[in-house]
Amino acid sequence: MFSERIERLTGSLIREILAAAQRPEVISFAGGLPAPSCLPMLDFSGIPQGLAQYGTSEGEPALREAIAAEANKMGIVCEPHQVLVLTGSQQAMDLAAKLFIDPGTPVLTEGPTFLAALQCFNLFGARISAVAQQSGRLPAEAVQATIATDKPRLAYLIPSFQNPSGACYDADNRRELAEVFDAANVPVFEDDPYRALAYDGAAPAPLVSHLKNAPWIYAGSFSKTLAPGLRLGYLIASPTLLPHLVKLKQAADLHANRPAQWFVTRWLTSPDYPAHLAKLAATYRVGRDAMQAALERHFADLATWQIPQGGLFFWLKLNRTIDTRELLKVALEQHNVAFMPGEPFYPNPEDGLGHLRLNFSHASAERIEEGIARLAALVREA
Amino acid sequence: MFSERIERLTGSLIREILAAAQRPEVISFAGGLPAPSCLPMLDFSGIPQGLAQYGTSEGEPALREAIAAEANKMGIVCEPHQVLVLTGSQQAMDLAAKLFIDPGTPVLTEGPTFLAALQCFNLFGARISAVAQQSGRLPAEAVQATIATDKPRLAYLIPSFQNPSGACYDADNRRELAEVFDAANVPVFEDDPYRALAYDGAAPAPLVSHLKNAPWIYAGSFSKTLAPGLRLGYLIASPTLLPHLVKLKQAADLHANRPAQWFVTRWLTSPDYPAHLAKLAATYRVGRDAMQAALERHFADLATWQIPQGGLFFWLKLNRTIDTRELLKVALEQHNVAFMPGEPFYPNPEDGLGHLRLNFSHASAERIEEGIARLAALVREA
Repeated sequence: MFSERIERLTGSLIREILAAAQRPEVISFAGGLPAPSCLPMLDFSGIPQGLAQYGTSEGEPALREAIAAEANKMGIVCEPHQVLVLTGSQQAMDLAAKLFIDPGTPVLTEGPTFLAALQCFNLFGARISAVAQQSGRLPAEAVQATIATDKPRLAYLIPSFQNPSGACYDADNRRELAEVFDAANVPVFEDDPYRALAYDGAAPAPLVSHLKNAPWIYAGSFSKTLAPGLRLGYLIASPTLLPHLVKLKQAADLHANRPAQWFVTRWLTSPDYPAHLAKLAATYRVGRDAMQAALERHFADLATWQIPQGGLFFWLKLNRTIDTRELLKVALEQHNVAFMPGEPFYPNPEDGLGHLRLNFSHASAERIEEGIARLAALVREA
Repeated sequence: MFSERIERLTGSLIREILAAAQRPEVISFAGGLPAPSCLPMLDFSGIPQGLAQYGTSEGEPALREAIAAEANKMGIVCEPHQVLVLTGSQQAMDLAAKLFIDPGTPVLTEGPTFLAALQCFNLFGARISAVAQQSGRLPAEAVQATIATDKPRLAYLIPSFQNPSGACYDADNRRELAEVFDAANVPVFEDDPYRALAYDGAAPAPLVSHLKNAPWIYAGSFSKTLAPGLRLGYLIASPTLLPHLVKLKQAADLHANRPAQWFVTRWLTSPDYPAHLAKLAATYRVGRDAMQAALERHFADLATWQIPQGGLFFWLKLNRTIDTRELLKVALEQHNVAFMPGEPFYPNPEDGLGHLRLNFSHASAERIEEGIARLAALVREA
């Protein structure tokens, strides 16, 4: 009765478990929610009445200009007409999947990678090859080898403060990777929602800024820096890709919400925006440091991890390879603490056994200490 | 390099022609834009700050309740948990296509039908069979015959004030069609964006309200009744379909814009809403009557048409079967008047030769008279 792809529509069991555990007594490290204190006021006063009417699929001109200006500052040489405003950066995955993926199309990702990207690409039938990160880098030789054997038609990467690993590839690593993708002419989709959340210095210029001929899509989000409830993101693409992406956007939902575009444009062009970003980084740095201290106290003999220099997550590798999906059930039911199991972040879930992802942007420092202590006790038992 | 579906991504040549003709001197009957005087004020004062945070994929509970309440009044027996809030009702097509359509999947539509639905279903590879409308009805026997030969796995219909034809099927026709779909167990997608724009009495209860066992999706929009710039719509689905549609929505863009959901909820539950809808209908009735008068004056010997009892469009059948795509170019370049050619509303464009769609909701009565006069002169020449 249904299309073939529905067989690949993974019900997110974990999302369901976590949804069932929205009780206030649960200390949750599971999501990637902004702290309420970091969300801007929803002030729409002064919004032009004309925005009630239909808009253009590409997005509001002023917003496209502001986005292109930011991107050029980051190092991406681009024009406003290369910007497509999206209904959240998740939509970039849907559009890229439509553009590139047929059933069986090989796609290269990092291992681990963002689970919603895996779900989206799987839905369209991708055959995913994950290249393992090593010590906060993505080895260019391993990428090259995977390209040679698996012939990916799209590479999806999160080079800056990756979700879930927190890794941020250095400039050399980005250049090497860009050379490899250029040489094989593999289209690169760089997902970059965490760039502004940098706690120990800025991330290097985007990987796509080093590309010389491979087609590329760069996706950004306003969910981490402004307000996720607006569902506003964007992509910038090389000129050969953009016209297709605009048509796909048109077929998906015509255009993005215009009041949200106006709200975000006002912030991006506001003299208060740098201070807002600085406040975000300062707030989340406190959470990061609190979690690092708690992990040192309680997990030193149970797991290894890198200190994330940005983003929203710690990524723990337990010393014992236990199934953290099972651990989650016990954690929730008996200890009122939640986290994200590592398995769903790998195309082959077994590769993720013994990993867990811990968010530090939402709980207070006290709740972080308490939750990490509970979690450590549980892992010690298991 | 691209997916196979990109070969089917129809660049809307007509959209491009029309976009190139946004000059103020052009009298446009091409779009389906609400009149600016009918758009509600974009007043977000009092919006709860909590809506800046992530929301649920299904939509805000209060909005789902308000939508279900409206639907029950129309005759669709449903619960709020069957409602999925969407980023515009265009998204219902994208999600339904993902749910049902593989390359080669047979889909039944009306002939003519909404061109964006054709584009979306074609993108996913549908093989479309169009059943011709006859005298404002969709003959149940013809639908039955098409089901028997083509075995559609989805039927897409716009029974109320159809775009483009303006037809509104009577209650008997809806019941007959429901029986046919029930007997063959063909899932029905009823698209119903124009219901509130009724000028000579309400449309009969939705077709899906007559279904006894076939699965169904009912899609509604707030773009015609409130503000298209918000990109907010919804679907209601039978319980077997909804969980899949929620997951597909999650993979597409997580959830709909929350300020828009709040804005629409406030309107739907406002004591002013009935008066707002009455004002809309009164305004557009004036446009409809102005266009009917102008057509009688100028087109009586050139074309035939039905007076639409709702919706936004007249649908003209020229007495001579000329290609209205060619006509559009001349109309725009030499006469500063725009319309929608009929061809793109048919899966086989040649079936639409000699038809044109005229919108009456956006231009003033004076501009309608002037534009119809210009258009008639042009057709007379052609």
